[in-house]
Amino acid sequence: MSQSKTTNRRIVLASRPHGAPTANNFRLEQSPLPTPAAGQVLLRTTHLSLDPYMRGRMSDAPSYAAPVAVGEVMVGGTVARVEASQHADYKTGDLVLAYSGWQDYALSNGDGLTKLDANMGQPSYALGLLGMPGFTAYMGLLDIGQPKAGETVVVAAASGAVGSVVGQIAKLKGCRVIGIAGGADKCRYVVEELGFDACIDHRSADFPQQLAAACAKGIDVYFENVGGAVFDAVLPLLNTGARVPVCGLIAHYNASSLPPGPDRLSLLMGTLLKKRIRMQGFIIFDDYGHRYPEFFKDMSAWIAAGKMKYREDIVDGLENAPQAFIGLLEGKNFGKLVVRVGEA
Amino acid sequence: MSQSKTTNRRIVLASRPHGAPTANNFRLEQSPLPTPAAGQVLLRTTHLSLDPYMRGRMSDAPSYAAPVAVGEVMVGGTVARVEASQHADYKTGDLVLAYSGWQDYALSNGDGLTKLDANMGQPSYALGLLGMPGFTAYMGLLDIGQPKAGETVVVAAASGAVGSVVGQIAKLKGCRVIGIAGGADKCRYVVEELGFDACIDHRSADFPQQLAAACAKGIDVYFENVGGAVFDAVLPLLNTGARVPVCGLIAHYNASSLPPGPDRLSLLMGTLLKKRIRMQGFIIFDDYGHRYPEFFKDMSAWIAAGKMKYREDIVDGLENAPQAFIGLLEGKNFGKLVVRVGEA
Repeated sequence: MSQSKTTNRRIVLASRPHGAPTANNFRLEQSPLPTPAAGQVLLRTTHLSLDPYMRGRMSDAPSYAAPVAVGEVMVGGTVARVEASQHADYKTGDLVLAYSGWQDYALSNGDGLTKLDANMGQPSYALGLLGMPGFTAYMGLLDIGQPKAGETVVVAAASGAVGSVVGQIAKLKGCRVIGIAGGADKCRYVVEELGFDACIDHRSADFPQQLAAACAKGIDVYFENVGGAVFDAVLPLLNTGARVPVCGLIAHYNASSLPPGPDRLSLLMGTLLKKRIRMQGFIIFDDYGHRYPEFFKDMSAWIAAGKMKYREDIVDGLENAPQAFIGLLEGKNFGKLVVRVGEA
Repeated sequence: MSQSKTTNRRIVLASRPHGAPTANNFRLEQSPLPTPAAGQVLLRTTHLSLDPYMRGRMSDAPSYAAPVAVGEVMVGGTVARVEASQHADYKTGDLVLAYSGWQDYALSNGDGLTKLDANMGQPSYALGLLGMPGFTAYMGLLDIGQPKAGETVVVAAASGAVGSVVGQIAKLKGCRVIGIAGGADKCRYVVEELGFDACIDHRSADFPQQLAAACAKGIDVYFENVGGAVFDAVLPLLNTGARVPVCGLIAHYNASSLPPGPDRLSLLMGTLLKKRIRMQGFIIFDDYGHRYPEFFKDMSAWIAAGKMKYREDIVDGLENAPQAFIGLLEGKNFGKLVVRVGEA
């Protein structure tokens, strides 16, 4: 089922999930192609980014962004072609970074669009290494984590879109970098391809012991994007003065209630106190939007110098987005998950 | 029982407490006066500071500082007179800030001593407003809390040695300041004498509701030195971008096990993430020792300008230190707790 020139397919939130999302929480709808009014452009999606934060948008629990309304199209970052333009700044054929969601076509008045090189070789990179995940890795590690040469940096979800970049930047900064990933294949990739010093499989029965052995001098920076049992193993290894950027907590996104006791809230706060640890949450564009050019310059230079390895997990077809997203929350993807919605 | 010129009284840790310390955990011992060797001074304690962190030193659980060994003298900050000197930098009659512990006399080779004005009017202030508690309040609030004019700052233990200074500095910076204290007398003092905008009694049955009503625009800075039920009421009120300096957790110091579930560790981390909150523990002299002169200059100026109110709770006699310390952990003191050990 490929893109049509007359019909818009859109995946809407059919119902809110309880726990892990299922296919029933999504619905594919079709509607006629919209027509741009004065000041608008018609966008055709070529690539859709799938990211863990979208789980939060499916719930109506209080969060940093409004939830997707039931019946509305799922939100998401996209790369898109301008198919028709009534906007002075855009012409047909322009390639843009947009936030037009899980659909083939969308109208835009230009707000939030970023022009891309119309002939760029890998447009999907704008959704990863050079986009939100790469920017997240860069600012969270460098501004909150503040790694110093010789320190030990631990990164969870190390083969993923954010973790892989965190670890590679930490290596460029002279740190010892330990990854955590699910399964032998991902761990091998993290060490052999990405150049981390070690990678521990969190599915191993003795994962906490393996992590402790790999971090003989403790942990100075822990880049948190997982939570759960991974954080439980990290907590006792944090060094005095450690920094913990909190970027995501994918292990908790499907939780519908708090886990049973004892209540370790005071244990965490006591550890922060005794070890003088800084723990800080951040939402990349809200906190750091103004520093995007600095990131873009550094990252472009690293890519040009061959210093950044990057792996994508490309899924073909908008209709496969729900299943791919469900798998993402289970760690089934290997590399940055992107849906190829249409021809570039 | 007053200071002798021939005998040293010292209070040692008799046994480690389980839960709240009792009188049996302390023992008063007597020994002959020590004699300074070459390079040493003999110090006579005039004032001993009692502070919540000492509870941590009584336990052998891992912490940022070594525990007091059973049978050894309890540690603590002191003001002391030099009674005899074999040290080129000190002469008899000098007044010093020391860390000579719960005893009448101690030898020192000069390490860690700070000379005070030998004729200063209130030597005990060196243990409070101008000493560790004041310095803790100053750096924790200004460096980690970074309050901006118009923001809401909440301070627990608001009538205490640290909290009272935190709130007064926050007022000087143009913030709306809400104190939390135990009992109507302390709350009245915090508002009427210290000039906070409001003070909520955490013993009230509807404390969380009262706090929420007083913080109609949420909380931008929460200076944490309590934990427990106070933090539980604060957590849902924290604003996006809030800062939480973690200075102490007195509600937990006597806990011998974690409270029952559910486990709210993930709730805390999720709140830090969604609201992009910074939470940071600190140990004042380890983290900020080099900035003491900056504090001393500012605080001296504020005192000289009549901008700092300060209340001491003075207990007479070294032998009463254990009971006073036990009371401190229960919130029985009102103002900075200091033991007058001998004549200044």
